[in-house]
Amino acid sequence: MSVTAAKGFTAAGIAAGIKENGTPDLALVVNNGPRRAAAGVFTSNRVKAAPVLWSEQVLKSGEVTAVILNSGGANACTGPKGFQDTHATAEKVAEVLGIGAGEVAVCSTGLIGVPLPMDKLLPGVETAAAHLSEHGGEKAAIAIKTTDTVHKTAVVAGDGWTVGGMAKGAGMLAPGLATMLVVLTTDADLDSATLDQALRAATRVTFDRVDSDGCMSTNDTVLLLASGASGVTPEYDAFADAVREVCADLARQLVGDAEGASKDIRIEVVNAATEDDAVEVGRSIARNNLLKCAVHGEDPNWGRVLSAIGTTSAAFEPDRLNVAINGVWVCKNGSVGEDREKVDMRYREVHIVADLAAGSETATIWTNDLTADYVHENSAYSS
Amino acid sequence: MSVTAAKGFTAAGIAAGIKENGTPDLALVVNNGPRRAAAGVFTSNRVKAAPVLWSEQVLKSGEVTAVILNSGGANACTGPKGFQDTHATAEKVAEVLGIGAGEVAVCSTGLIGVPLPMDKLLPGVETAAAHLSEHGGEKAAIAIKTTDTVHKTAVVAGDGWTVGGMAKGAGMLAPGLATMLVVLTTDADLDSATLDQALRAATRVTFDRVDSDGCMSTNDTVLLLASGASGVTPEYDAFADAVREVCADLARQLVGDAEGASKDIRIEVVNAATEDDAVEVGRSIARNNLLKCAVHGEDPNWGRVLSAIGTTSAAFEPDRLNVAINGVWVCKNGSVGEDREKVDMRYREVHIVADLAAGSETATIWTNDLTADYVHENSAYSS
Repeated sequence: MSVTAAKGFTAAGIAAGIKENGTPDLALVVNNGPRRAAAGVFTSNRVKAAPVLWSEQVLKSGEVTAVILNSGGANACTGPKGFQDTHATAEKVAEVLGIGAGEVAVCSTGLIGVPLPMDKLLPGVETAAAHLSEHGGEKAAIAIKTTDTVHKTAVVAGDGWTVGGMAKGAGMLAPGLATMLVVLTTDADLDSATLDQALRAATRVTFDRVDSDGCMSTNDTVLLLASGASGVTPEYDAFADAVREVCADLARQLVGDAEGASKDIRIEVVNAATEDDAVEVGRSIARNNLLKCAVHGEDPNWGRVLSAIGTTSAAFEPDRLNVAINGVWVCKNGSVGEDREKVDMRYREVHIVADLAAGSETATIWTNDLTADYVHENSAYSS
Repeated sequence: MSVTAAKGFTAAGIAAGIKENGTPDLALVVNNGPRRAAAGVFTSNRVKAAPVLWSEQVLKSGEVTAVILNSGGANACTGPKGFQDTHATAEKVAEVLGIGAGEVAVCSTGLIGVPLPMDKLLPGVETAAAHLSEHGGEKAAIAIKTTDTVHKTAVVAGDGWTVGGMAKGAGMLAPGLATMLVVLTTDADLDSATLDQALRAATRVTFDRVDSDGCMSTNDTVLLLASGASGVTPEYDAFADAVREVCADLARQLVGDAEGASKDIRIEVVNAATEDDAVEVGRSIARNNLLKCAVHGEDPNWGRVLSAIGTTSAAFEPDRLNVAINGVWVCKNGSVGEDREKVDMRYREVHIVADLAAGSETATIWTNDLTADYVHENSAYSS
């Protein structure tokens, strides 16, 4: 499973002592070839962590041989020293594996503004390399957890080839890019341009449409590495479908494990004039704290949905809007619809349909409810 | 105080039975002249409540003789019947006062999507008219409360003239327009164009810069009525200053009474290239739920401030950003600054300075922290 489901990859996850509580905090993923094609998508936050700045440069070559990922520290807003630390980490991986530092992508996650403990991290690289295994994908997925309660992996098998991956992220899920760290691997024999096309198409409709709390990270990274070890070059569409499926699976797992959440909210905007309109309306609803509180309280407060739609620039007429919550059309033509008492909101997944009656485009955004636990988890300690 | 501080105004606040708990829920403010000049600013939410649609039309004449305001129901998303109810309310006020319905502004606040109990409201108009008094401003301010814990009034005295006002609103404070309902009165002798200019200048830097929870109401209304009863026509600048001062005072009271808040956060963006940049950055910080949680936990988590700045399109270089929290420059040049242990966040007001180092413009946005109480208050019942 995970990043070692596809042939040609080894991985490891170990405890290097970066996290003070002694849990696993360092993962290494190695592409043993024969190809080392790669593509990456990074946070659109203009305040980027050092590892993002580094990895963006690495990806320009279209080749990545190894990815080193640490939890326990984001190495963001750490100045020139932070970039030196990322560079030193890549150099260490390169030295241990006998490759060039320019082939090593680096990912970090944890608290912003705190220097990484390099005296723990660098020896950890050696330990991780010593533990590399074709069965190491699960351990790698565990080592990148921060506030995640479970590790996240997904696999889709193609015709003689496989796409697998791991993800971490339970807060800071947001637009531009939804999750902190995702590594996908495939043994399909494809070049980096094809990987890039498939990865961008997939993230646009999966991670980019998860908006757990509207906060965009400085460290978000999604990487796709291809080893070519299957010897199979799939049709583009079949491959792109598989990548999207793995991304959708991991994105759904991120929503399901969002910090402090008690509900996963699927916001489906239908009959929009354009897909952009549908996404804008979906995001506006997803970010409405009052609505998120109402969902937490299992209150089908459709007025808050309309209020959120009203703040957008999407094409619609207020008196033609319709809203369904868990299948009950509580708002029809901008006014009171079916009896709100009919709405059953007991289960974790809540489905809101916003019908703009302005066209035929659609988009689905995922978010979570706003809970006292979210507040506690994010106010009780620095994360 | 309140709307009866200025000469020429009477007001009343009574319990009409619109609210089931029997507390005051209907306010009437009457301009007895000699002038009836007026200006208004309304929500920019495209889903507008019936009373907003009505009052926007009334204000086009530049004259308002009476304002009727109810709590206990927003009359928003109530379809054609909702608009008929607003119209009937204005007609009733007109009949009782012997004026035209086109001189009556209507404001409503409360739950969206529920019809008003007109069998309670219309008789209430008669009761309110019977209680009109030059000392009724305080009672009117009390009658427009919803989840407000205190009523809000403010007065500024000019040279022979006065500006006073009342406000309600404790949730749904947001951009576009910050509060639910505000009525300002003055006995200055000014025309509606001058009132309009002064009111827009004032709301732009006061109510528009309060962003308690990022949610914009369907009912926001700010009205300014002038009776001319002082016989004094003030200099524009002195009058505009007084209007801004009253608005700033009321806006500060709204922040201080926001639903479930334990902190009032003053976000001062300095050295921005443009005022628009400063406002965009201030709003982005104000709407960052993770930061709002951190402030609640008295955690000077400046990384979340940088992360919020990074999502904007404002001019800045990440490695030149500086952030101070309560006077301590915890972030310098985009990296670790002074010791965060020095930051004292025990008091209700928290002051965040974001220095963009990109120009000389500035803006201040007010918001609140995100608390478990906010979640409880907004999930436990429909509001």
